[in-house]
Amino acid sequence: MNVVSVVDIIQNKIIVNSKVTIQGWVRNRRDSKAGFSFLTIYDGSCNKSIQVIVNNNLSNYKTEVLLLTTACSVIITGIIKNSPFQNQNFEIKAIKVNVVGWVKNPDTYPISAKYHTVEYLREVAHLRPRTSLIGAVARIRHVIAQSIHRFFSDQGYFWITTPIITASDTEGAGEMFRVSTLNYNELYRNGKNEIDFSKDFFGREAFLSVSGQLNCEAYATAISKVYTFGPVFRAENSNTSRHLAEFWMIEPEVAFATLSDIIVIAEKMLKYIFSEVLHKCLDDLNFFVNNFNKNVISRLEKIKDIDFIQIEYTDAIKILKKHENFFKKPISWGIDFSSEHERYLTECYFKIPVIVKNYPKDIKAFYMRINKDKKTVASMDVLMQDIGEIIGGSQREERLDMLDIRLNEMNIKKENYKWYRDLRSYGTVPHSGFGVGFERLVAYVTGLKNLREVIPFPRTPKNIDF
Amino acid sequence: MNVVSVVDIIQNKIIVNSKVTIQGWVRNRRDSKAGFSFLTIYDGSCNKSIQVIVNNNLSNYKTEVLLLTTACSVIITGIIKNSPFQNQNFEIKAIKVNVVGWVKNPDTYPISAKYHTVEYLREVAHLRPRTSLIGAVARIRHVIAQSIHRFFSDQGYFWITTPIITASDTEGAGEMFRVSTLNYNELYRNGKNEIDFSKDFFGREAFLSVSGQLNCEAYATAISKVYTFGPVFRAENSNTSRHLAEFWMIEPEVAFATLSDIIVIAEKMLKYIFSEVLHKCLDDLNFFVNNFNKNVISRLEKIKDIDFIQIEYTDAIKILKKHENFFKKPISWGIDFSSEHERYLTECYFKIPVIVKNYPKDIKAFYMRINKDKKTVASMDVLMQDIGEIIGGSQREERLDMLDIRLNEMNIKKENYKWYRDLRSYGTVPHSGFGVGFERLVAYVTGLKNLREVIPFPRTPKNIDF
Repeated sequence: MNVVSVVDIIQNKIIVNSKVTIQGWVRNRRDSKAGFSFLTIYDGSCNKSIQVIVNNNLSNYKTEVLLLTTACSVIITGIIKNSPFQNQNFEIKAIKVNVVGWVKNPDTYPISAKYHTVEYLREVAHLRPRTSLIGAVARIRHVIAQSIHRFFSDQGYFWITTPIITASDTEGAGEMFRVSTLNYNELYRNGKNEIDFSKDFFGREAFLSVSGQLNCEAYATAISKVYTFGPVFRAENSNTSRHLAEFWMIEPEVAFATLSDIIVIAEKMLKYIFSEVLHKCLDDLNFFVNNFNKNVISRLEKIKDIDFIQIEYTDAIKILKKHENFFKKPISWGIDFSSEHERYLTECYFKIPVIVKNYPKDIKAFYMRINKDKKTVASMDVLMQDIGEIIGGSQREERLDMLDIRLNEMNIKKENYKWYRDLRSYGTVPHSGFGVGFERLVAYVTGLKNLREVIPFPRTPKNIDF
Repeated sequence: MNVVSVVDIIQNKIIVNSKVTIQGWVRNRRDSKAGFSFLTIYDGSCNKSIQVIVNNNLSNYKTEVLLLTTACSVIITGIIKNSPFQNQNFEIKAIKVNVVGWVKNPDTYPISAKYHTVEYLREVAHLRPRTSLIGAVARIRHVIAQSIHRFFSDQGYFWITTPIITASDTEGAGEMFRVSTLNYNELYRNGKNEIDFSKDFFGREAFLSVSGQLNCEAYATAISKVYTFGPVFRAENSNTSRHLAEFWMIEPEVAFATLSDIIVIAEKMLKYIFSEVLHKCLDDLNFFVNNFNKNVISRLEKIKDIDFIQIEYTDAIKILKKHENFFKKPISWGIDFSSEHERYLTECYFKIPVIVKNYPKDIKAFYMRINKDKKTVASMDVLMQDIGEIIGGSQREERLDMLDIRLNEMNIKKENYKWYRDLRSYGTVPHSGFGVGFERLVAYVTGLKNLREVIPFPRTPKNIDF
């Protein structure tokens, strides 16, 4: 039995007139009065289905084939033929149609062949990968992930895993999920009436990590070039299209690298990813062009060849100030950018990706390197159309005395960062890194507006089904 | 400035007599009475260091070079030369030595050049990647991870991410970590005096996932071939060398695949990984041969070319019964294997990897497919030397009626598996998958005995430092 994937047939890898077996699901069925039926079969290997022609002389034609409905599973053996139809090169003339699984009550099948909104599909997240939309997202997501691993690996980076459960808080900000095995009915308290976490699994209070960066720094200052690619968590109660409680992040960290070095790396990485997706996912991208956003291919092609704009935060403020009436709040040096500012810069003003550099220290994390002006830190955000911030990074403060000043300014206890400070005591080096929001990247590539569509099973406030 | 990595020099990618700059850390320093010093410099790009010869005519020779100690960071420019020494091909004749970071109090530097036990190194997990041991683990871990992604991607699998935070319990067994944002001082209770999780972030009780399998099945029954590679969690209070509370798992899931299909895939995957590691990590493997386990290379070479033993559980029991006096407890059909049984089969009896098939249903999970004998399930475990079980998998029960019988037998509420049962109601297909413990794989490849050495920052009971 020569089992092949639909993508192999579509991509002309199977010789015409050869006998093959395909395994998949029925997208739809049309019956001709001339004594045969057309089945379109998908197996998820690509966006396209393959048409199968079933003659009524097959023994189970009347008893089974004519009863097939959307999503029935089948194993079909037949001969590959050139197709006379315009929109397909090949079709299969069936020799045998083996129905493997039926659909109970086809009339109530949750994702029938008709149009469904993305909002509705979230309610059937276990079945939505069967749609062309979520299937395309899965394949593009895969290619983006693989291209990230390849990009870094080819350049001598090592993928490392940083802890998911942690006792420390990277940002000094952002709400965290608590991880615990304490029984709510047997909580012990200490003399101050505080919960006694010494009874908990880890012997102290533990949380889900918001970033692997600090741990990544320990590895970068030992083996030079590393990156993480793993899940991170935010317990913010914000129900927006741009936030997930659980998402995946890529965080490279590079020893001896300065801010300008990692800006080069970030831009190169994005262009590599976009080239790979254009090269490997054109069919899936075309699905998005035809159904969601006609610009997704053209903007990827444009971006992969242009230099991104680089601009100082201070200069970005001047631009925004000139167009202050566009925004909800007044513009002044020192403010943090909100999504509307970011999108104005990249969508309206420059119309290409923008890298904003050297933000005021007061709106950035303690670990970012203080610039000579003592007011700004060596930080950067990459802003892109539709998404706003897709990457945030910085040169890290490698000077122990300066780091301690910053910890002090921000009322963070030095004792909580003992091991992190050690990295500066023993052979410290300049080093830099950034974080890429994986789902934002997938959203940008596909043009989808809501992150809930670009992750298989989204986690948001009050939403943990599936 | 032509910055190169140590590995580029070692691998003969840089032309002799060219001027290069290296960036790294001092492994050690020896001073010759002839008026120069030898520095060995590592940058983590490979297991080897590069020797740098520094002449006393450098301006900072006395003021800086002679003060260098282990772990000081340096940027050195010099000329690549063929080395007259036996154990190295190349060395660098320094033109400039720029000391970037000193080591405070070298006498108390936690990982001085002397020998340290692995137990001690765990106490300085933030600095241990600077050792040859943990550096080698990181590089091998990286190559194994990359080879897994490549193996599956090349064969048409799509990497998917399954939720880390979940409301369901895949195994129906195994203790789980609770994930919550509830404030311990403001717990609301319902009429039955139970905690009211409707106030919690997700509106119900939530946990850290023990496996992505069930979610993976939703994607396999839509796009045919998928795999996860992500972290999973066990809140078992077991402080052994073979357990971690947080570890990484690879879980492929394949539509239309039977038990024997995935046995082939599992064996092929392991052999691919071992070939890749032998091809790409020989220097690092030699480090383990010389320092930990002289067999690690020879056993990988042997295994990549042999057929693994396949044996029925029932036959494995017969073998163990014959040697019953080796074991703590009596052997009889129906028992679950413990580590001593698994290791006896693979290490003592067959002396190669063993795949045990068709375990009794009563010791396996509800989702495994019932065999015709009604007593066993279509399951398999791959057992390997030193590690015992490294892979566990099964054909999944795709027949809704049989699945419901199993749920019933095991007193699991059908309502809790509504969406999982849906996959069987709508175009069900035979499908199979397995889980690979990533850290056990790294332990096998390196020959390290304790999983705490093969993950950057181990999480075990009462241990969440770093």
